[in-house]
Amino acid sequence: MSDEPFVVRPIGWVESPLIDLADAPKQGDEGAPDAWIVIDPAFRPALHGLDAGAEVIVLTWLDRADRSALATRPRDDPSRSLSGVFATRSPHRPNPIGLHTVTILAVDDTRMLVRNLEALDGTPVIDIKPTLGPTESR
Amino acid sequence: MSDEPFVVRPIGWVESPLIDLADAPKQGDEGAPDAWIVIDPAFRPALHGLDAGAEVIVLTWLDRADRSALATRPRDDPSRSLSGVFATRSPHRPNPIGLHTVTILAVDDTRMLVRNLEALDGTPVIDIKPTLGPTESR
Repeated sequence: MSDEPFVVRPIGWVESPLIDLADAPKQGDEGAPDAWIVIDPAFRPALHGLDAGAEVIVLTWLDRADRSALATRPRDDPSRSLSGVFATRSPHRPNPIGLHTVTILAVDDTRMLVRNLEALDGTPVIDIKPTLGPTESR
Repeated sequence: MSDEPFVVRPIGWVESPLIDLADAPKQGDEGAPDAWIVIDPAFRPALHGLDAGAEVIVLTWLDRADRSALATRPRDDPSRSLSGVFATRSPHRPNPIGLHTVTILAVDDTRMLVRNLEALDGTPVIDIKPTLGPTESR
């Protein structure tokens, strides 16, 4: 294992009508509005092959998270018992990486309109990956 | 967006019979051996609720990757045309985060035996998240 720190560089950011944490759904398929993923033009060649209709995984950096949290109550429900954060999707975790499965609705150069993204406006995007279909289509 | 660099801290590492990149399958469900995820005991409380039988997503830091790569040939197949790295699962990408969907076979304190992890021995682990079932079971 290298001793260098692992530094993540933003590749873009989210443009969304979701401004306030209180308005955000817990998961993207629970009522998130359509949002734009805006990629830094320096990474344009890395987008080749991402087209409307594709389902992709978007990784974000949840920069408002509490990285010291190790346990939480799922879905902020005080009636539920504490779970370790690795057994939840809480944004509050040692490495505040958000994972969102979204569908690309439209592509406009380095901007992509997506469905089911619950990240707040301005959230940094750090990676995009295709979901994996059956082995033979990879 | 904050101006601070986004620094990822390892939470543990992979112990696997996969030592050599040439032996690793392209994806975990294409012949990966069972492997251990060894979590730093400092994060023990964060594991509470992760039990044998659970399907989880493991994020790793692919420290041997080429972060300057923006395009690649899928599955290293020279007959295929170049794709942007964000349209592939190539480890060579601006932020070399690996995403692995695995099944927990056994838990021994801060060690978890998992199926379908194609990461090499020694690979740093940076996050664990549950996969999402139907809304009502979250």
